[in-house]
Amino acid sequence: MRVFIAGIDGYLGWALAQYLTARGHEVAGTDRFLRRAWVEEMGSASAIPVYSMEERLRAFEEHYGKPLNFREGDLLDYPFLRGYLEEFQPDAIVHLGEMPSAPYSMIDQEHSVFTQHNNVIGSLNLLWAMREVCPDAHLVKLGTMGEYGTPNVDIPEGFFEVEYRGRKDRLPFPRQAGSFYHWSKVHDSGNTMFACRIWGLRSTDIMQGVVFGTRIDEMGDDPRLRSRLDFDQCFGTAINRFCCQAAIGHPLTVYGRGGQTRGFLPLRDSMQCLTIAIENPPERGEYRVFNQFEECYTIEGLAEKTREAGAAIGLDVQIEHYENPRTEMDEHYYNPDREHLIRLGYKPTHDVVAEMKIMLKDLLEHREHLLKYKDILVPDIRWDGSRRRSQVIASEAAVK
Amino acid sequence: MRVFIAGIDGYLGWALAQYLTARGHEVAGTDRFLRRAWVEEMGSASAIPVYSMEERLRAFEEHYGKPLNFREGDLLDYPFLRGYLEEFQPDAIVHLGEMPSAPYSMIDQEHSVFTQHNNVIGSLNLLWAMREVCPDAHLVKLGTMGEYGTPNVDIPEGFFEVEYRGRKDRLPFPRQAGSFYHWSKVHDSGNTMFACRIWGLRSTDIMQGVVFGTRIDEMGDDPRLRSRLDFDQCFGTAINRFCCQAAIGHPLTVYGRGGQTRGFLPLRDSMQCLTIAIENPPERGEYRVFNQFEECYTIEGLAEKTREAGAAIGLDVQIEHYENPRTEMDEHYYNPDREHLIRLGYKPTHDVVAEMKIMLKDLLEHREHLLKYKDILVPDIRWDGSRRRSQVIASEAAVK
Repeated sequence: MRVFIAGIDGYLGWALAQYLTARGHEVAGTDRFLRRAWVEEMGSASAIPVYSMEERLRAFEEHYGKPLNFREGDLLDYPFLRGYLEEFQPDAIVHLGEMPSAPYSMIDQEHSVFTQHNNVIGSLNLLWAMREVCPDAHLVKLGTMGEYGTPNVDIPEGFFEVEYRGRKDRLPFPRQAGSFYHWSKVHDSGNTMFACRIWGLRSTDIMQGVVFGTRIDEMGDDPRLRSRLDFDQCFGTAINRFCCQAAIGHPLTVYGRGGQTRGFLPLRDSMQCLTIAIENPPERGEYRVFNQFEECYTIEGLAEKTREAGAAIGLDVQIEHYENPRTEMDEHYYNPDREHLIRLGYKPTHDVVAEMKIMLKDLLEHREHLLKYKDILVPDIRWDGSRRRSQVIASEAAVK
Repeated sequence: MRVFIAGIDGYLGWALAQYLTARGHEVAGTDRFLRRAWVEEMGSASAIPVYSMEERLRAFEEHYGKPLNFREGDLLDYPFLRGYLEEFQPDAIVHLGEMPSAPYSMIDQEHSVFTQHNNVIGSLNLLWAMREVCPDAHLVKLGTMGEYGTPNVDIPEGFFEVEYRGRKDRLPFPRQAGSFYHWSKVHDSGNTMFACRIWGLRSTDIMQGVVFGTRIDEMGDDPRLRSRLDFDQCFGTAINRFCCQAAIGHPLTVYGRGGQTRGFLPLRDSMQCLTIAIENPPERGEYRVFNQFEECYTIEGLAEKTREAGAAIGLDVQIEHYENPRTEMDEHYYNPDREHLIRLGYKPTHDVVAEMKIMLKDLLEHREHLLKYKDILVPDIRWDGSRRRSQVIASEAAVK
């Protein structure tokens, strides 16, 4: 199949380009390298060194025996986007071209507006371009499990049957996102659902859990093919952050009580799931939602697993509870479905600690590099719009 | 109270500035005059002549005995917005500063992107400005009943208690909007609900029905104080369009079977309701939703009422069914609540035909002016992204 990847230079995009190419798909993609700039803005850098796109493309051609169809560009540039899609004529479009950080979107007015503008308008442009030049293509759109928030009922996959005052309907499941970033994804979901209904586009909207991991097998040992991995407060997600902290002996930064429960999945599972979605497209006009994660864990539980994985390779991992910079419940009910992907053949990895050991080994190679960033590991972006570094919550009593 | 009106030059804004001032409130406001430009872009004009803001302000001061605090500006201009609010220190902010047309948002990529950018980013700026300079103010935000779409169950006011798989929660009622404009309002609702939760802002989110009417009593007979009234396919809402069509002997343009059911309210009821919301603010941190309409009617039923009102003053009103340019159900269940406003003292007018008679008399005065626009009364903006003028559906059989 011909697959177009928006955001092909990113954590998922670069891995997916390789994973799909290795499976025989024809891949093209675009990126504006904003992720590189944002991480630099945070005073951070990728834990795994990232090569320039020129070097990445050279390695790609050497390794996979054909060039990668890449053009630098922006989804906000409609003529560029429309022209590229018209030329490439994709069967599937994987939309990874969004600003992906909750804290980044909460910094101030400017970052908040940037996030919603970039994500909502970029995605809206994509819908219009599809309608105009490739209406038969399948849009695999990356949403997030965070769109749902933490309701006190089970979380279905996008829709639920409700009985209300004696009448029944199948309705979109209500979204209660927890940051302006997460809301931008909710907005995209609404626009996409609508475009499928009125224009007969087809889309799989992926409510993805938190991804972790330093590699997929396809990357082999060529450092130019490796994925980036972020660990700063904005672009580093929980397990990735914990493993980087463990690698340099910094205490793991658990926010609040650590009872926050989320769905997680290794990078290799994300590749597997996205490919299943791509290779099993919905009908024209269908908008379907997949919840995509391997399993749900509490943050505290993941910190314990990181300690276990560290101990196995001789690391003494400390865990500290910090004031939670976010406005969120740190203990709550959480029970999301994830049946659609299983039904289509997804085999969850189910071994977080084994994945963490691979990560820790990969990251220890870059210990000196990581140590340069040890002062930015404690969060300071607050949900109330202020900027104050979180303090360690002193006593066990205060934590529980 | 000190009330700030965003969009003070518009259909509702100009009327509200007068209504509130007459009740003794202190009003300030801003506008960028985009509504005037959009209507011109549609090849149309207000049915009731609109005066320049200079002339309006002069009449305002003459009539109400004090100047209106007005500055031209844009909600997209954050420093302007923040500065004006910081200076005025409003108790309430009424947000009417959005692009309000469904068809306009469906014209093409450019209009669609303009709509969502203008509405989502303007509203997001307003939330940030409130947080920074007037966090205690009450945001009265104009949403639309169209955010809900037409579900097969009753429509509550924003939230509903659900039982799902044996557990219960109070959740936002799912939104299924019918145009990119309506979705922009859904996006705003999500952002506003979130800002109230994390920043303790307070907001009343008004899901307003379709407003109609040429005047409120406060305007008296000074033509400089009168409201605009649009009748083109983008900015003319159903009853306003029908009355203009009736005034010049053009057949009423019912879309499809005309079984579409919506909530409607006269301009005077809208003023009454908005004022009730303003004068009864919610607590800090509260986000409440009011469904605001007088009664639900089918489009076909309103056409019949327009005929009745016309007959009473000697007009022979024809009704024609046209191909529906929109993708929507033209027969469906519809049963929204509107208890919150009633509980706070809203007294619905309950006499659509009497209001229509006032409108027809007002509009007949401008018959010659209206006749200039008789060729733009049949819609041509289709929801499929094309532009084709709707044809009359010939036979009664095809209609039913």
